[in-house]
Amino acid sequence: MKVEQVLHMNGGVGKDSYANNSSLQRTVISMVKPKLGESIVELYCAMLPECLKIADLGCSAGPNTLSVVAEIIDIIDETCQRLKYAPPSLQAFLNDLPGNDFNIIFKSLPSFYERLDREKGNEYLGKCFIAGAPGSFYGRLFPDNCLHFVHSSYAIMWLSKAPKELGTETGAAASNKGNICVAKTSLPDVYEAYLEQFKRDFALFLRCRADEIVPGGRMLLTTMGSIRSDDPLTMWEFVGLKLNEMVSEGLIEEEKLESFDLPYYAATTEEVKEVIEAEGSFTLQRLEVFNMDWDAYIKQADSNLDKTARAAIIAKDIRAVGEPILASHFGEDIMDDLFHRFKEDVLEYMEAHKCQYINIVMSLTKKEN
Amino acid sequence: MKVEQVLHMNGGVGKDSYANNSSLQRTVISMVKPKLGESIVELYCAMLPECLKIADLGCSAGPNTLSVVAEIIDIIDETCQRLKYAPPSLQAFLNDLPGNDFNIIFKSLPSFYERLDREKGNEYLGKCFIAGAPGSFYGRLFPDNCLHFVHSSYAIMWLSKAPKELGTETGAAASNKGNICVAKTSLPDVYEAYLEQFKRDFALFLRCRADEIVPGGRMLLTTMGSIRSDDPLTMWEFVGLKLNEMVSEGLIEEEKLESFDLPYYAATTEEVKEVIEAEGSFTLQRLEVFNMDWDAYIKQADSNLDKTARAAIIAKDIRAVGEPILASHFGEDIMDDLFHRFKEDVLEYMEAHKCQYINIVMSLTKKEN
Repeated sequence: MKVEQVLHMNGGVGKDSYANNSSLQRTVISMVKPKLGESIVELYCAMLPECLKIADLGCSAGPNTLSVVAEIIDIIDETCQRLKYAPPSLQAFLNDLPGNDFNIIFKSLPSFYERLDREKGNEYLGKCFIAGAPGSFYGRLFPDNCLHFVHSSYAIMWLSKAPKELGTETGAAASNKGNICVAKTSLPDVYEAYLEQFKRDFALFLRCRADEIVPGGRMLLTTMGSIRSDDPLTMWEFVGLKLNEMVSEGLIEEEKLESFDLPYYAATTEEVKEVIEAEGSFTLQRLEVFNMDWDAYIKQADSNLDKTARAAIIAKDIRAVGEPILASHFGEDIMDDLFHRFKEDVLEYMEAHKCQYINIVMSLTKKEN
Repeated sequence: MKVEQVLHMNGGVGKDSYANNSSLQRTVISMVKPKLGESIVELYCAMLPECLKIADLGCSAGPNTLSVVAEIIDIIDETCQRLKYAPPSLQAFLNDLPGNDFNIIFKSLPSFYERLDREKGNEYLGKCFIAGAPGSFYGRLFPDNCLHFVHSSYAIMWLSKAPKELGTETGAAASNKGNICVAKTSLPDVYEAYLEQFKRDFALFLRCRADEIVPGGRMLLTTMGSIRSDDPLTMWEFVGLKLNEMVSEGLIEEEKLESFDLPYYAATTEEVKEVIEAEGSFTLQRLEVFNMDWDAYIKQADSNLDKTARAAIIAKDIRAVGEPILASHFGEDIMDDLFHRFKEDVLEYMEAHKCQYINIVMSLTKKEN
């Protein structure tokens, strides 16, 4: 099974859908807003394009998907009013893998355009063009030199595939027995294999974007990171613990767990910088890190929720992201049990360990030729 | 209910889906192939763009959707081999209303790209970019001057809405009692109202495309037409007869039928020419008409099918196109009955009347400024 076919958020608008369970991602996007503003204003003022062409890579499908486009329109609108310029037109490409639920995004476009007309008036009428660009961002998505700005939030920590050195089938050196990603009990070889896969993938990502972005164009990338490369600190280690529990109870075959490695790597700031420098097409203008407790975004939205309610939300949010790829390997029928266990124990685990999302935000400029 | 929300083909891949019942449209596309070839070769040789940017308007979702892009790649490939040029990259925008099933198209892209690599080799690797551009083509879909070629097959006979002069609610002059589109029993006012709506819509279509297409760029439009403007000769008149039958049997309320007018108009060649000339942005290079008996494409595909089998195919094909808009007005529960009646009687009707699809093919060039 190819990663591209199973790596997507839960579609639709049902109770387990990503559309209804993506407040973590929304919180992160809103925290990165000021940096988005900076990037867009600097870019726009330097280039003054008649039509600003942007792409959101790993857009997924839900209320967050169009929020980035809306935010960019707001920033451009303010800037043009301040400078007394006529606003440019905007072409926005929403990208995700072909299995993403694009229908749900497209059906929401008429009301998005209506709101735009209502809020911004006639100047924007027929000047905002939104298209879907399905495909892997570890490959070319657009023609040469056709984008001014690329945005991506919480996407590039997903690798093109798990490192091929892992797994029992190849009989290779490294094995990540009992874990589904880099975890505290992973061997050094495992870190190494994941890190190498990340380096290859991120370099390819940069090379493809370098071809697609005009000289002087920008990227703003937010990704999940870590403090040290052998520092798990991700939700997925905890999912792995629950899967182990189910193996020990005979609910999942041991071999099934051993042969599963998540295509996921949370890089450190040093690792990210190293790849950007080695690849050489972009200048890293700014790199910032901010941490968030696993349940901080829930407390922030509603400070009255008790532990049980917070745990239920975390479990639903992580299910919306992880279910398609986990179910494709372990089967749909164990999902309820898995996420029930997750919900029961997640807050206890958080209290015993310092569980945080480490977010890395990078602002990059394509070098002039 | 807005037309844009209910005017789309049956989605998915089920037995009533457009994807599985669109051989009529495929036949028409294949008959227009030589004209597509002419247009693309003339365009490419005149412009030699590094990246050929095209759009297919009203692409729908099914095996036909990507066949036009594949055909264009074949034509360009042959031309470049003949001229010993390196092939250009290609950006293709697939357009339909936001209710179209884009997911099904996007999921088929990986195998489309794989076949392209297999058949054309490395030169095309990472040079073909397919995007979805949802929206009504009676409005702007793309930024200024960004397309070289626009293709549309069997789409522009669908109007932006039924003429507002019709219907009982407005109490306007014209009424199209008992019919769902221009039919033999329609009053002259009805022809007039539909014709006016077509003229407004087609002029708007041309104006929008004129902004989007580069000077010298091309369009190839295939649409359902008619011999005279009061000549029904369309499948929809027959659907209307069956609905009338159901009214007379008390299965549909008379008022329900009276308040329904299909946003559909099959123009004559004179009407089409008049709008193109009046709008003024395009030169009509060629206009051709070809007729096909309603079941010709079925006989052509399999000459052994008897009448019952042919009628069943016609009924399924027309259901795949008409069900969403008919069901939104008359209710899902009468659809089986309606298309059963259709299937029972369609061949008899064809023998009594000369039932043909009149297809108009137009090749247009955007005037140089």
